[in-house]
Amino acid sequence: MAKPPSMCPRRLLPLFLGLFQGTLLLFFALFVTYDESSAQGEDTNLVANQVYSTFPFFQDIQVMLVVGLGLLLTFLPRYGFSALTHNFLLLNFSMQWALVLQGLLHHFHHGQIHLDLHKLLISEFAAVTVLISVGAILGRASACQLLVMATCEIPAYLASEWVIVTCLGVLDVGGTITIHIFSCYFGLGVSKALFRATQQPLHPKETPTPRSDLMSLVGTLILWVFWPSFVAILCQPGDSQHRAILNTLLAMSASAITTVVTSSLLERDGKLSPGHLQNGSLAGGVAIGVVADTAMPPVAALALGSLSAMVCVLGFRFLTPLLGRKLTLHDQCGIHNLHGLPGILGAAASVVAFMVASKDTSRSHSSQLSPVGGNASEVLEGQPGGGGAGGQALCQAAGLAVAIGASLLAGLLTGAALRLPCLARPPERLCFDDSLYFKIQDQAESPGPDSSAEEGALSLKE
Amino acid sequence: MAKPPSMCPRRLLPLFLGLFQGTLLLFFALFVTYDESSAQGEDTNLVANQVYSTFPFFQDIQVMLVVGLGLLLTFLPRYGFSALTHNFLLLNFSMQWALVLQGLLHHFHHGQIHLDLHKLLISEFAAVTVLISVGAILGRASACQLLVMATCEIPAYLASEWVIVTCLGVLDVGGTITIHIFSCYFGLGVSKALFRATQQPLHPKETPTPRSDLMSLVGTLILWVFWPSFVAILCQPGDSQHRAILNTLLAMSASAITTVVTSSLLERDGKLSPGHLQNGSLAGGVAIGVVADTAMPPVAALALGSLSAMVCVLGFRFLTPLLGRKLTLHDQCGIHNLHGLPGILGAAASVVAFMVASKDTSRSHSSQLSPVGGNASEVLEGQPGGGGAGGQALCQAAGLAVAIGASLLAGLLTGAALRLPCLARPPERLCFDDSLYFKIQDQAESPGPDSSAEEGALSLKE
Amino acid sequence: MAKPPSMCPRRLLPLFLGLFQGTLLLFFALFVTYDESSAQGEDTNLVANQVYSTFPFFQDIQVMLVVGLGLLLTFLPRYGFSALTHNFLLLNFSMQWALVLQGLLHHFHHGQIHLDLHKLLISEFAAVTVLISVGAILGRASACQLLVMATCEIPAYLASEWVIVTCLGVLDVGGTITIHIFSCYFGLGVSKALFRATQQPLHPKETPTPRSDLMSLVGTLILWVFWPSFVAILCQPGDSQHRAILNTLLAMSASAITTVVTSSLLERDGKLSPGHLQNGSLAGGVAIGVVADTAMPPVAALALGSLSAMVCVLGFRFLTPLLGRKLTLHDQCGIHNLHGLPGILGAAASVVAFMVASKDTSRSHSSQLSPVGGNASEVLEGQPGGGGAGGQALCQAAGLAVAIGASLLAGLLTGAALRLPCLARPPERLCFDDSLYFKIQDQAESPGPDSSAEEGALSLKE
Repeated sequence: MAKPPSMCPRRLLPLFLGLFQGTLLLFFALFVTYDESSAQGEDTNLVANQVYSTFPFFQDIQVMLVVGLGLLLTFLPRYGFSALTHNFLLLNFSMQWALVLQGLLHHFHHGQIHLDLHKLLISEFAAVTVLISVGAILGRASACQLLVMATCEIPAYLASEWVIVTCLGVLDVGGTITIHIFSCYFGLGVSKALFRATQQPLHPKETPTPRSDLMSLVGTLILWVFWPSFVAILCQPGDSQHRAILNTLLAMSASAITTVVTSSLLERDGKLSPGHLQNGSLAGGVAIGVVADTAMPPVAALALGSLSAMVCVLGFRFLTPLLGRKLTLHDQCGIHNLHGLPGILGAAASVVAFMVASKDTSRSHSSQLSPVGGNASEVLEGQPGGGGAGGQALCQAAGLAVAIGASLLAGLLTGAALRLPCLARPPERLCFDDSLYFKIQDQAESPGPDSSAEEGALSLKE
Repeated sequence: MAKPPSMCPRRLLPLFLGLFQGTLLLFFALFVTYDESSAQGEDTNLVANQVYSTFPFFQDIQVMLVVGLGLLLTFLPRYGFSALTHNFLLLNFSMQWALVLQGLLHHFHHGQIHLDLHKLLISEFAAVTVLISVGAILGRASACQLLVMATCEIPAYLASEWVIVTCLGVLDVGGTITIHIFSCYFGLGVSKALFRATQQPLHPKETPTPRSDLMSLVGTLILWVFWPSFVAILCQPGDSQHRAILNTLLAMSASAITTVVTSSLLERDGKLSPGHLQNGSLAGGVAIGVVADTAMPPVAALALGSLSAMVCVLGFRFLTPLLGRKLTLHDQCGIHNLHGLPGILGAAASVVAFMVASKDTSRSHSSQLSPVGGNASEVLEGQPGGGGAGGQALCQAAGLAVAIGASLLAGLLTGAALRLPCLARPPERLCFDDSLYFKIQDQAESPGPDSSAEEGALSLKE
Repeated sequence: MAKPPSMCPRRLLPLFLGLFQGTLLLFFALFVTYDESSAQGEDTNLVANQVYSTFPFFQDIQVMLVVGLGLLLTFLPRYGFSALTHNFLLLNFSMQWALVLQGLLHHFHHGQIHLDLHKLLISEFAAVTVLISVGAILGRASACQLLVMATCEIPAYLASEWVIVTCLGVLDVGGTITIHIFSCYFGLGVSKALFRATQQPLHPKETPTPRSDLMSLVGTLILWVFWPSFVAILCQPGDSQHRAILNTLLAMSASAITTVVTSSLLERDGKLSPGHLQNGSLAGGVAIGVVADTAMPPVAALALGSLSAMVCVLGFRFLTPLLGRKLTLHDQCGIHNLHGLPGILGAAASVVAFMVASKDTSRSHSSQLSPVGGNASEVLEGQPGGGGAGGQALCQAAGLAVAIGASLLAGLLTGAALRLPCLARPPERLCFDDSLYFKIQDQAESPGPDSSAEEGALSLKE
């Protein structure tokens, strides 16, 4: 069993996490209470109906983040346990951290924060940004680095989301701009600042095996199935939510088919790349978020799904290697192809949609800014910052620019901070290896090259 | 890496799919709009309630089809990635194709088709038939063949379903006759016409490994858990739906236990066959569909579940080998045992139920035919074609006969079409192998017979 | 292929199960009918709403028990298929058996038992106890032994639950005392009486492999995601249910983080143990059940989640080896650490909560005992046995004592019964091995130690 380079970071992780959990307990003890409906004159039936209408969607999103996204990341054959665990840990850490920050910023009334399912959900949305950004440096960063990254990303996200949604009045019910684009460029910024100009060589443990590809595809399918819940949960009940579900279903269905077409056309021998399938099938869901609840015709959802899958696969085939060579930009999971490019496509589509529909009367056009409180639920109120659909188109474009700019800047700064030696980036030899953090039979050091790890683990005992 | 026999079919797949997706976009652009409740005078609350009451069921069914059924098909150890992907691709293709055809046939008013969640669901039900039929030829057909099969099966299903439900007035809320029996005999017909009199030899890659059996069992369990949603989603809300859920739960619970009993009694050494368990546990769900919402006593659901599991396991043990020898009928996944035999049992049960309950007043007995529009939602209205329960019993029997006859005929014709050389059935050597379609480390060609594929893939790099 | 020691038990399993299923059919035929709302003057809308409000929770619980718990048990690398199947079989068997017993005891009116979704759910809760208890002897008991254990445990559970909830008026909406503590000590009692003073040696097939650990972690994550549904399904709709969901989410989130902290601090090299993660993350859900719907502040849920995860990990590290050495107590899955210790912690918390909140007016304080009928739904009515919150604190403590005492006694007696030779405990050599019960390629007897089982299975054919 390889001795890790230093004991310090191994102690740093539990200390950091323990301190965080302790502080959180203190914070909750002092400031957080439940939102009792009786205290506010709401009747029990109303609360019950809110639970019944939100909770199934909420559970769908939990499955997506914990199981679906976790499995999607297990494509690294010897890093599956770490990928699942880090994803799970970061979700919980970021969610609690977002809960504190959001509570302080938006929901602090009379010295108290009233907790409810909706606020937990908004915090979970904030945590999603961290889970996406991690994809850029997966397998090459220590757990401490990931936690510090989460610590920096959540406030940056909340600030950017406040500017985009509350100040600019951007409409983005599925989080295309606020979540996907932000987290993508934040992650790329971190990766650039962390690895600088050193190109990351192909690691022997980085190549997926048939089995790890299969597990990862199962993760994709789980994400694919539940994506409509993610897009529609914050929509206005009724037509708007119904439309968001349908648009997402259509976009994702078109993505699935177009991914196969594009991936198969790109290769000389017509074989599909598992990575294309695992990512391209989801591209439509990323792109549709920003326009899912608007009154556009169904064909637009299909077209957007097709286009975004195409862009995603082309990105994997041409852009990622190019960025790697020219900018020495490392993007382990290809988040730029799944979240960046389709996100920009979706944002552009929303600009076009509002420009075309300058006469569109289906959305409110009040010109006053919404009051303090920029969480994602504000999206619902749909208070555009400018007059009419033309002004809204401008807002969407501005929002896109803010998201990219703010996330890149914050990401670069965070990445620089991650270079601190005490955070102990793992040495090349221990990258992509579960045995760095877990008491797991080290697969790389099984008896010999002509013996499987699993059999080796057992034969040792017999 | 083995060179495929011809480059043509590799180009055919993306061309066919791309053309399809393009035509669909055109069709949507011209004819499809959303069903706005405001335009029809419905209030927002009603739409919201419809979403809340349907969407959780819909998501359950999506999980069943995409994850559950996909995993169930991964029992072929080197074909798991292909099985999952083909299942996913065919679901999307068939759903969109059914959407177009159903729209043209039933929902075309004033040059427009109004899309809503219910129509998507009905199209998904149509797609299920393709996913089931594929089981007969899984691993031995090319992707092009599967797509052509889907192209033929959807219109055949819609026609057969229209005759059975709308013309004959068959009551079949869970799709036992219209979906399971139809797709089973369609698949068998395709298999017969495709492979003709050549018996398919046992392929070395066809034998499940412990790991692929485990993944397949997980798929079975996912299907088992969500099956009640599949049966109950189209039921009348209230008692009828409640009863359908309970009946399905009871039938599937009895199936699980009876499968263990039967499989264990059949073998000399009392060991259970994984294949029996993977299929028999679901047999009750197939059989109960046709009577799930009727006012039969709970014991009938239990008995039907038990019997269908018994029939399914006996089918695997005796009938499948017999059909293989006598009729040279190839049935890779044993769909005849899971969908055919339990389906016929369920249909027979419904005939008996209506004969016994000639005095049953719990269902409407109007004698007029339902108007044009034979989608599955018509099942709800329950307009039997004859007078009284006695007449209904006759209808059910007639429906069964139509389903078997129409599906066999359509399947044989489709299978004959699949023999077209341009569709490129894979050579025996490349059957059951992911490397035919995917850029996946070819497991069969790993360094040597005494080295695991996974270890081999990695040791090559080290 | 190893010849099993005796053919008798192989025949016993199907005979026992078949007899059971036959008797159940007879029982259902004679006594069970559906609960028709029309017969009771309820309107259809009400039934529909009950279905919509309960069914999504019910499905979540089904996924937990069938898929989540099943996968959690697959950490034994060569026993995965058996673990999944036994879990599935025992769930169905126990649920049906509990349905019969509960029907006879509580719902037998005018010679009939009216079946509805709620009664199925209550029976499923009873079945959970069996699934948990099995963890103590997993892999070392025959299927017959497990079925006999289930046969004994269900009536013991129903009796204990009746005393605790109906007689003592214990409030335990999430089943912490009635389900988790009871099943834990029942399982330990069985293990003690079955294995007596013989310490179980470490079996070579007992050590998890990286792959089996990964599958098991996926099971944990599925349980983690859906746990709030398990706790909240029997709560009063409205605030109470909302609070239960939030408390469970907070407790489980704190558990996840604290598990990492504790496990990492315990080991000299700071590496996490997969087993700690698989169990500790769920400890908060066990502990919170008994207080989830009470009006305690959110910080209490967080603290309880943290503490229970700590206790669980410490239990794995220190208590389990100690109990093994001193009491020769065998606990295969560590159910004492996941269900016993956190359960006791939760029960203690509820005692403290009621003592602190003697002035708490948020819960009813009527002193009369609830009428006959002690199923879990009675918990809802919350009829404490004593006057005021102080009396309730006493009740909770008494309930804890009853649960531990009754379960240990019943478990010891059951364990003694399991020693009957006809139940055929598997010999040491065949423990933890799928090939004992399933026609699965025997992984232990693959061609040689330097060949993987999977490759071996295939190379034999080539």
